[in-house]
This record gives sequence, C-alpha cells and structure tokens, in this order.
Amino acid sequence: MTDVRETASATPATSATAAETNDPAASVLAIDIGGTKLAAALVRPDGRLGPLATRPTPKGDAEEVFAALAAVATEAVGGEEVSGAGIGSAGPLDAIAGTVSPVNIPGWRGFPVRDRLAALLDGRPVALVNDAVAGAMGEYHHGAGRGVRAMLGMVVSTGVGGGLILDGRVYAGATGNAGHIGHTVVDLGGDPCPCGARGCVETITSGPAMVRWALANGWSGADTTGVALAASARDGDGVALAAFDRSARALAAGISSAAALCDLDRVVIGGGVARAWDLLEPPLRAAMADYAGLAFVRRVEIVRSALDGQAGLLGVAALVHPETA
Amino acid sequence: MTDVRETASATPATSATAAETNDPAASVLAIDIGGTKLAAALVRPDGRLGPLATRPTPKGDAEEVFAALAAVATEAVGGEEVSGAGIGSAGPLDAIAGTVSPVNIPGWRGFPVRDRLAALLDGRPVALVNDAVAGAMGEYHHGAGRGVRAMLGMVVSTGVGGGLILDGRVYAGATGNAGHIGHTVVDLGGDPCPCGARGCVETITSGPAMVRWALANGWSGADTTGVALAASARDGDGVALAAFDRSARALAAGISSAAALCDLDRVVIGGGVARAWDLLEPPLRAAMADYAGLAFVRRVEIVRSALDGQAGLLGVAALVHPETA
Repeated sequence: MTDVRETASATPATSATAAETNDPAASVLAIDIGGTKLAAALVRPDGRLGPLATRPTPKGDAEEVFAALAAVATEAVGGEEVSGAGIGSAGPLDAIAGTVSPVNIPGWRGFPVRDRLAALLDGRPVALVNDAVAGAMGEYHHGAGRGVRAMLGMVVSTGVGGGLILDGRVYAGATGNAGHIGHTVVDLGGDPCPCGARGCVETITSGPAMVRWALANGWSGADTTGVALAASARDGDGVALAAFDRSARALAAGISSAAALCDLDRVVIGGGVARAWDLLEPPLRAAMADYAGLAFVRRVEIVRSALDGQAGLLGVAALVHPETA
Repeated sequence: MTDVRETASATPATSATAAETNDPAASVLAIDIGGTKLAAALVRPDGRLGPLATRPTPKGDAEEVFAALAAVATEAVGGEEVSGAGIGSAGPLDAIAGTVSPVNIPGWRGFPVRDRLAALLDGRPVALVNDAVAGAMGEYHHGAGRGVRAMLGMVVSTGVGGGLILDGRVYAGATGNAGHIGHTVVDLGGDPCPCGARGCVETITSGPAMVRWALANGWSGADTTGVALAASARDGDGVALAAFDRSARALAAGISSAAALCDLDRVVIGGGVARAWDLLEPPLRAAMADYAGLAFVRRVEIVRSALDGQAGLLGVAALVHPETA
C-alpha cells in the first residue's frame, strides 16, 4: 500500500528543506483546489491553520486559473517564511508528473500545478494529492473518521470525490487516483458525464446536477445555486425536495458499491451539498435501505464531516507535516 | 492492509500442525465452494494439485450441502495424510467466526463450515477465505495477474464475485468481504437482488440472470443453461446475443466503478460465463468505451483468467502454503 507521502517523494522532503533554511519551525502553505473555489492557509508547526484566503475558481483559461491560485497563495503566506507547500486538488491528477486535469476546471488539462507553484515559492518543495484524499486524511486524523480502520472520505459539492483509508493507511492507488466515487456508474442508461462515461454518481448527486434537474422539472428559485435549492426544499417545494431525494438515491448506490468493494467501516461526507445535511440525510438513509443488501454493506456507518471546509487543508497539513497529525 | 493469512490466524498455523504430526511434507486439502459446484483437491508440498473431485452444489438444506462437501473432501483426500485445509467459499462470509452465507446457496446462512470441516479432519486446522479472493490470489501468483500491483480477480458464473490485490497484497477488508463487485449497484431502477439490494451487477451479468432475461424475451434453447445460451448466440440467435450484450454492459459498468474507486492496473475475469469469452469480450470492450471515462479508468487492462476453474484452488494453496506461491 502506497503511502501518499511516498507519492510526493519526487520532491525533497519538506523537513529537510526547512532544516536547510535553518528554520525548522517554518509554516507550510496548504492549498485546496476545487471546481468552485480555491483556498489556502498556512499550517503552523503545531498543526493549526492560519487565516484562510479564498477566491472563486475562474472559468477561464489555464493562466487565469493559475493567477487566482497565486493570489490566494500570496495572501495566505502574507510575507511569512514557508518551508514548502502541499496541494489537495480536485481530480484526476498525475501525482508523479505533478499535473492536474480537474473535471470541473476545464481550463486545466494536464496543468503542471506542482512545478508552477514551486516556482512561485522560489523552488521550495510542493506535494500534490487528490483533494478528496486530503479531506479523508483530515477526517481520519482530526474529524469524523477517527477510530476506524477502513473509511471513505467524500466531498459532495460541484463535483463528487472521495479518498480511501484502508487498514488505517491512505490507499492512493496505482496512479494516485483511488477513491473517485463520483465516477462510479450507478445508472446504465444515465446521462453523459463530463468525464466521458455515463450514469456516474456525479451526474446526479452533485450540486450543479441537482439544480439542473430541478430547473428542468419546473423549479424556479431566487437564483440557480444549491443554496437557493436548499432554501426552496426547506420551504416545502416539491421539486426541490425531489432533487434532494434523487441526489441521495444515487449517492446511496455509490456508497453501497464502495462498501461492497472495499468493506468499509465508515463513510464521512463533506462538501457544499452535505452542508444541507438536514435535507440530505433522511433520503440518504432511506435509500441505503434499498441499495445496501449484504450485512457487511449494511453495517457501514454514514456520518457528516466534522471539519467541513477545513478537512482538505488539515489533511494536506497531515501529509506534509505528519508529525502534527 | 490485512493479509488474509492473518484472518485465518484464529486456527493454528498449518505448518505447525504438520510439524506436530512429524509430517512436514503432508499435503493440504484445498476446497472451492460455489453456487453451482463444490470442488476439492490436495495441494502437494510442491504446490501442484492432485486429482480434482467435484459435485453439483445441492439446492437443499444445510446438512445436504455439507454432506456433498464431505463427499468431495473425502474423495480428494483419498486416504492420504493431510496437515489441514483451506476453503475458498462464495460470499458473504465471516472470516473471524468461520461461517458462510453464500447468496446462491440458500441452505447455508451463517453455516459454520470451518469448524464442521475441521471436525471431519480430526481437528486439523482449516483456513477460510472468500472464493473470489482465493481466485484473485491464484491469478496473481500463477495466472493472468502476474506482474501487476493493483488487480481485481473476478468470477462471473452463478454469482459474480471478486477479490482485490492492492499494492501487491490481498486486501480482505474490515470483515474479510472486500471485492464483492457483483453487489455494486449499476442500475438505480433495477431488479431486486437476492442480497436485499436492487440493480446489482449480479442481477444482470450472472449466468442465471442472462438465461432468465433471454427466456423472458422469447429465447428457447435446448435447455435453460448458460451453455445452451452460448450455443444459441454462436448460431446467431438475436435474443441470445442481446443477453450477452446486456450482461457485458453491466459488467463494464461494474469494472469501471471498481477502477474509479481502486485505481486498478488489471481486471482478470474467470468463471463459467467467461468461458464464452468469444461472446463476452467484444460487447465488454465496446461497453467499456461507454462507461470508462477518466484516463486512469480507461487504462485498466481486462483479460481472461489464465487458470480457469483452478484459480481458486491454487489461490487457497497460496494462502495456506505461502512458500509455494
């Protein structure tokens, strides 16, 4: 089983670099790259996060997205000394080459984000992992995943991602992409997915998919965001409620598949859609009764993220500064 | 990552028992329990299999099934000295308790097969693993899985099962049930499955599911077996060909899901349905183009078992006699 720290070993260890700069107590820059927003914060040597810098993820070309990333990085660093950086990025990515091709950031295809960020940090080392793997690591060490041996940490947001902890260790997979539950297929006749397949969990469960389905079925909200959809559902709007139900059913099927394959103890769900946990949880538990059959599948615990938006940054910190985990 | 050998550690190590009986070169009895047939053979100290004993799996009650198992075991042993036994059984099972509840053997629910077989062998140790895990181990060490780090070994037969090798080791899962690809959900609105869920790969891809669908769609073969269905398909019968196509599509969706979650190098397919590889392979490869989107999912190699029916017994041998693997 590959430890993600090994995956990042193409760059020198951050601790060695900190020693070279005679600053073993330097902070590390943690970055979270998602389809909706870019976030960055310093991770102090004691594992705590500094002030959070965020920007919406630009819809434009590669350089426009990178300029926004540079802006959050610069804001988070704030002129302090850093020994290196860790990036948790939406997938897929190539952890060996240091490139990312996030499904929901069309401007980046094979974008060399690791080396570009390293250049911005005067050559300091940068580690790159899948954002959902980072989130799973955060939950496993600091949040709702504590105390189990086999878990899936999920992010249900603009996309649907996941990271696996198996037998108490990150399972990164042959190419660093394990845990992509959003692209498990739950609907043989389903809609095409931007990934190139069809019927993927993400085509039904993601926030944009929910809004798209609700609009196609007559919903008219204050605006076309997931937040507005959740508000309508809380007001008792039938189509908005049905959108949550439909999302939860595909999510339940994906979770059941992951439990059948990986024999999990627990699934931890975070991300924007999970923030409407009051709306998501009841239909999700009802749908698990339909899609989880075998006893070892039914026993999987489903819980909400305890760290919300910070799981990814804390997980990146745990990967880069394992002694603080 | 739990090595399956650890899972079996509730019983003394076979090598220790062999030493106690002053017969370090004794053979081990390997048993394969499936929904269609029961098979057993001695594994010689050099890893080779002795003559194969088989019986159809009875459809009756628990004792009737066990009597058939005892018969194949006795025939395979043939009066020789054995140091212990290894069982690869259709799942689900409880590797700690030593009990099995195979979906396609309704007579066995929580059946204590490990202890019952141990009693038959005068208390000699018996190891129990999932049959598909055993099959994956066999392919990994001796067959079509050689040379990779992350693979899924599948059996497509009366049921659809699987076993995972991740980072070069068996991944057995939290309860010893990892790899149950037959119960991943690929059809949200699909038919109920005997496991209690609905839309599972097995409800579409298994041999009996193919025959059931073909009969419901007007096929009339020589008899209602998968072999007769394959014969019709080779004769150009449209419904029989469509049954293979439908089976292959659900299989492709399940494989794509497994690859998205576990980032696999290779999938090795064995079992009765895979014996009609000339009929299964073309629609399977075509369907992978529909259901495998991301580059790391598309790169998974799909190959036919190199060991056919012997993968399970050889895998059990590799688990019980690791030095012969």
